[in-house]
Amino acid sequence: MTTTVDTYPAARRSAELDAEITADASRFRILTGDRPTGPLHLGHYFGTLHNRVRLQRRGVRLGLVIADYQVLTDRDVADDLDRRVLGLIADYLAAGIDPDEAMIFTHSSVAALNQLLLPFLSLVTVPELQRNPTVKDEIAHSRQSGVSGLMFTYPAHQAADILFCKANLVPVGSDQLPHLELTRTIARRFNDRYGRVFPEPEALLSSAPLLLGTDGVKMSKSRGNAIMLGATASETARLIRGAKTDAQRHITYEPQARPEVASLVLLGALCSGQDPVELAEGVGSGGAAALKSVVTEAVNSHFAALRARRAELAADPGHLRGVLARGNARAHELAEATLAEVREAMGTVYGVSR
Amino acid sequence: MTTTVDTYPAARRSAELDAEITADASRFRILTGDRPTGPLHLGHYFGTLHNRVRLQRRGVRLGLVIADYQVLTDRDVADDLDRRVLGLIADYLAAGIDPDEAMIFTHSSVAALNQLLLPFLSLVTVPELQRNPTVKDEIAHSRQSGVSGLMFTYPAHQAADILFCKANLVPVGSDQLPHLELTRTIARRFNDRYGRVFPEPEALLSSAPLLLGTDGVKMSKSRGNAIMLGATASETARLIRGAKTDAQRHITYEPQARPEVASLVLLGALCSGQDPVELAEGVGSGGAAALKSVVTEAVNSHFAALRARRAELAADPGHLRGVLARGNARAHELAEATLAEVREAMGTVYGVSR
Repeated sequence: MTTTVDTYPAARRSAELDAEITADASRFRILTGDRPTGPLHLGHYFGTLHNRVRLQRRGVRLGLVIADYQVLTDRDVADDLDRRVLGLIADYLAAGIDPDEAMIFTHSSVAALNQLLLPFLSLVTVPELQRNPTVKDEIAHSRQSGVSGLMFTYPAHQAADILFCKANLVPVGSDQLPHLELTRTIARRFNDRYGRVFPEPEALLSSAPLLLGTDGVKMSKSRGNAIMLGATASETARLIRGAKTDAQRHITYEPQARPEVASLVLLGALCSGQDPVELAEGVGSGGAAALKSVVTEAVNSHFAALRARRAELAADPGHLRGVLARGNARAHELAEATLAEVREAMGTVYGVSR
Repeated sequence: MTTTVDTYPAARRSAELDAEITADASRFRILTGDRPTGPLHLGHYFGTLHNRVRLQRRGVRLGLVIADYQVLTDRDVADDLDRRVLGLIADYLAAGIDPDEAMIFTHSSVAALNQLLLPFLSLVTVPELQRNPTVKDEIAHSRQSGVSGLMFTYPAHQAADILFCKANLVPVGSDQLPHLELTRTIARRFNDRYGRVFPEPEALLSSAPLLLGTDGVKMSKSRGNAIMLGATASETARLIRGAKTDAQRHITYEPQARPEVASLVLLGALCSGQDPVELAEGVGSGGAAALKSVVTEAVNSHFAALRARRAELAADPGHLRGVLARGNARAHELAEATLAEVREAMGTVYGVSR
């Protein structure tokens, strides 16, 4: 199934929203987050993290959920959650997320958020859950017996993430638009039936360029083709040295015709603030070796400060735990307030005389 | 599919457990409950409620969940939850449930219980959920599109009900054994993976006789063939007068051959403490009219005190709300304690320095 953006009227490109955010940033609350499968890589940074920091600095309120229940089926990850969660927080803070502004929290710590899953599940049908492309993919790729009940209900849990804090803007890639559409459906059905409690959030479509991994395929932790945000300068040099290029000596920026070379050029350009075409022209007949050297230099120089901050943060787990504890407390408070509204709307406030 | 008791080694008949309960009742914690679809009827009373009271009086700890999220798809019920929940509590207390001993609570009030749904869903697969007979029935009887995500995940939510308070005994009819088997599976898989937190509860198979409604079909609120626990004496007389019998004048107790007459005889016998065969012989050639008169008298006399208590309770909703508030507070405390153990076992305690 090809998802076209046009199918989803709620999807907005970053550029369209700029004027509105400039006019009144406090009107927007963003909910986004990550599964704590491991440290973030440069694809994450340029794909989403950088943009989160940028939006936060403009005054948009930011919620970051660490989806620690959504990794349980991956045993290796689940057995090492503490380290992975702290690593993710170190990545966030090193990248510039301000923990006094952003609310960083884990699913497992916010019971009132998780409770919303139940009324939300009553508002969607089994075929609607099955129709979700991510769930469909999972069913197609694992043996049928491998799909857990948690994966199956994941789109409704995501609706709880977004709606508990009444986020009205959700950064997504176009492949995630059907997820957000289900959140909007749940919000609308809840409001229609019980009275208005939830906003229908809009999608903020990423305009970030896609970075490929060192093997020319999408950068991904599990593929081993990723340069980590927290990698050392020499690790970075080694990874880029081993990156796939092609047989043409002269370096150009042609994303369609030469995806591997173009991705290296793009990475260098993003890090050095140059235009990719200019960067390619600058290397020219220097070939792949010269390109790799330019890119390595650009990456290591661009991320030097971030990496130094990350190393300091990683050395102070007590600070990271404190950040999470404060975020969890704020999420708890917000979720309790929303759940109280939900209980009132649904007529399930019995315990007190009235 | 026919469910045989033999398939489920965890199922125990009441009689087998009697000696163990006598020896040490405090070893047992029972979790049971009702969907608040409306007031309870005599089928509920003799089928389960009476037995709950009996077990409680023997010293077994009792948890009663009012499953207020599991009625949301029935719009008429959901729009009138407050009245229905209070009515159910009045039924419990009138029947003799001691609210200082039993923990009476609603799903919607115990977030930490509901949160357990998430890790539990990670331990079961979609086919395992589909295989549940109640869910299968629901899928077969409603149009496929009518099955909500909440109904689909209901067996895992039930596991959360039972396991949050570490109940080790669950009263069930034999048709519900597969539900309990899924709870046992979830408890076992959780313990195997994360370390022992949960008991594997046993089924307490009801030995209660099945009461038919006044139309000769299973007594059911939705069928309009039920005599309510809180019915007045004259309502009871009218309902029994209109009950279906058969063409044979002479009254006998033959459950297989004469189910409608036998059910009336049984109802009278249960209320008067007589043996049903003797009660039938006593009516003999008096015919259906005499039988109905005997049964009406027995029901109204047996339930007079209960009904008077129920009327008093119903007139004091503040008291019922207070009972529920205390039960919810106790359930909340228990659920928080269990969730803390679950978090520790799963390694999801990040927020505090350690």
